[in-house]
Amino acid sequence: MKAITVTNPDDPSSLELTEVDTPQLRDGEVLVKVHATSVNRADLLQAKGNYPPPKGASEIIGLECAGVIEDPGTTGRTTGEEVACLLSGGGYAEYVAVPEGQLLPIPEGYSLSEAAAVVEVACTVWSNLGMLAGVREGQTVLLHGGAGGIGTFAIQLCKQLGATVAVTAGSAEKLETCRKLGADILINYKEQDFAEELTGRCDVILDIMGAKYLEQNLKSLNVDGQLVIIGMQGGRKAEINLGALLPRRLSVRGTTLRARSVESKAEVVRSTVENVWPLLDDGRVTHHIHTTLPLADAAKAHALLDSGEVTGKIVLEVGEV
Amino acid sequence: MKAITVTNPDDPSSLELTEVDTPQLRDGEVLVKVHATSVNRADLLQAKGNYPPPKGASEIIGLECAGVIEDPGTTGRTTGEEVACLLSGGGYAEYVAVPEGQLLPIPEGYSLSEAAAVVEVACTVWSNLGMLAGVREGQTVLLHGGAGGIGTFAIQLCKQLGATVAVTAGSAEKLETCRKLGADILINYKEQDFAEELTGRCDVILDIMGAKYLEQNLKSLNVDGQLVIIGMQGGRKAEINLGALLPRRLSVRGTTLRARSVESKAEVVRSTVENVWPLLDDGRVTHHIHTTLPLADAAKAHALLDSGEVTGKIVLEVGEV
Ligand SMILES: NC(=O)c1ccc[n+]([C@@H]2O[C@H](COP(=O)([O-])OP(=O)(O)OC[C@H]3O[C@@H](n4cnc5c(N)ncnc54)[C@H](OP(=O)(O)O)[C@@H]3O)[C@@H](O)[C@H]2O)c1
Ligand SMILES: NC(=O)c1ccc[n+]([C@@H]2O[C@H](COP(=O)([O-])OP(=O)(O)OC[C@H]3O[C@@H](n4cnc5c(N)ncnc54)[C@H](OP(=O)(O)O)[C@@H]3O)[C@@H](O)[C@H]2O)c1
Repeated sequence: MKAITVTNPDDPSSLELTEVDTPQLRDGEVLVKVHATSVNRADLLQAKGNYPPPKGASEIIGLECAGVIEDPGTTGRTTGEEVACLLSGGGYAEYVAVPEGQLLPIPEGYSLSEAAAVVEVACTVWSNLGMLAGVREGQTVLLHGGAGGIGTFAIQLCKQLGATVAVTAGSAEKLETCRKLGADILINYKEQDFAEELTGRCDVILDIMGAKYLEQNLKSLNVDGQLVIIGMQGGRKAEINLGALLPRRLSVRGTTLRARSVESKAEVVRSTVENVWPLLDDGRVTHHIHTTLPLADAAKAHALLDSGEVTGKIVLEVGEV
Repeated sequence: MKAITVTNPDDPSSLELTEVDTPQLRDGEVLVKVHATSVNRADLLQAKGNYPPPKGASEIIGLECAGVIEDPGTTGRTTGEEVACLLSGGGYAEYVAVPEGQLLPIPEGYSLSEAAAVVEVACTVWSNLGMLAGVREGQTVLLHGGAGGIGTFAIQLCKQLGATVAVTAGSAEKLETCRKLGADILINYKEQDFAEELTGRCDVILDIMGAKYLEQNLKSLNVDGQLVIIGMQGGRKAEINLGALLPRRLSVRGTTLRARSVESKAEVVRSTVENVWPLLDDGRVTHHIHTTLPLADAAKAHALLDSGEVTGKIVLEVGEV
């Protein structure tokens, strides 16, 4: 089959369609013919060699896709069934092997390309804000990078949970996108100090900056506040004043979806389909696609995401390769 | 009334019985005639001026007591009723004003002095390990300072919750005390590196060392592991590698009981009475009293706790003052 590979290990932009082996099915996996995949920031890291796939996962980039079951393997699934897939890797390809627990239905009225744009963000946002942090009505949630793939989805979901939503973004345009999606408090991090604006007000923060924002995030938390870190775009190592945690009973947690076991991923998928899919089915929460490109243009897609010009997701369609 | 006060602000050992005003009742409070109080490590900090009482709390030292209701105020309580009390301060005295929500029954068969030795540890341990961390059967819990006031209680409670209990302590004798209370894994922190022994094995850690143990604690946590910090005997400021949190989905949380609001303390007390008191009533969990001294010997009691020679609690009896 054809798949995108990094042809020159020293050049993360050397993403080219090359001929590779079609994946072998393991027990409990189905083979999916990929119609579309979409780009995650982690894909850029992986292309640079900075985010090695977990043990047993495909070496090919790509954390989500939608397509058609080509071979149901030992599962009870049907050939030809349309599915969306949460992947540990392997999405930038014609075919991918997927544990049955990581298959999701196509949301009502969604094309396969649209479905490929919501799986990773829905599972990430729900597992962190729904399952772990338990965001609920009346709470204030701060979402960093509100105009990104994760952010554009999280804003909508938090509004559905009844929360007041604060976001950070780097431009007035991006903040306007966030406002349209439902964000209540808009902070341009290039001009304002979010911790000044939000001191002691946030019940939950979904953070993608790591070290750079740690102190400000703690300052922004309310009593019983929870900081959930899913990205470290601003570094890993920070000084922490533990004395700041105790009187307000703050918690700092970090998670990655990709490192979860197959069982744990299946649990996330089950809960996401149960709680988030109904919101997609009737449009209360919707995909936010910046642009759609052919899979062969993966390098262009990565450069585009890297440019900071993107709001929401970039979809890659496999088409005829 | 008589109460212990720090008579020389520059000398934390200048703890003397002096004449002070009897506390005025606020709405919802009862006046308790104190029979006994007990010493907490925080009392030593407060005597040194390092742990100022929260706003509105008594300036007098003492976080728990047991005694008899002298004046029920506006509550429906009865004069003469024996009660144990969780305090924000004021225990080292003849009388103390207590919000009704912070009154607990005397456990079955307990003397008032014995009751004064379990309130703060029970509420602290239950609020952190039961209510917040949700310790459950089959989990492994690490308790630092297993032979201390908190530790001796936490070991027993965790065993009742069905956990495997690891403890650290500074001597073979203290570890033997821990073993007798039910601890399964005994680590002499002066001779062993607990993080080497327990790498990746702990589901929950109750920490009292703060900065000094942060890195080792994180190393010791299992997937989904929770570090709950209630003391900072080893300092506040530490470097944290946030990258260590994400793949194992670790959480770091800090709490203090004393800083909770009156409503939040009442919730802790209610849940502690519901879940822990039955275990005290029939002796499945029991008090661990090192020694009992007259209140007038508060300075001696503080020196004793400071010496590191204590296992469990020191009780101070008011008697005739
Ligand atoms: N742990 C997990 O399971 C998991 C899963 C999915 C994603 N992630 C992580 O989540 C993050 C977002 O992923 P994504 O796919 O949504 O990426 P994305 O679409 O590239 O979004 C990242 C956003 O970060 C914003 N940003 C950059 N610097 C910022 C700053 N200093 N303050 C606030 N925002 C800033 C950018 O917007 P501006 O132009 O406004 O700066 C951009 O919109 C990434 O770090 C990714 O690795 C983690
Ligand atoms: N946040 C809250 O709500 C709350 C409530 C109650 C208590 N606390 C805190 O919890 C801690 C324990 O309180 P406590 O009243 O039980 O005090 P305690 O009886 O004095 O116990 C402290 C214990 O710490 C041990 N220790 C000292 N250095 C250690 C080290 N490097 N590693 C492991 N253990 C060490 C000592 O035992 P060794 O002789 O074995 O060293 C001692 O048994 C204190 O820091 C206190 O402030 C917090």
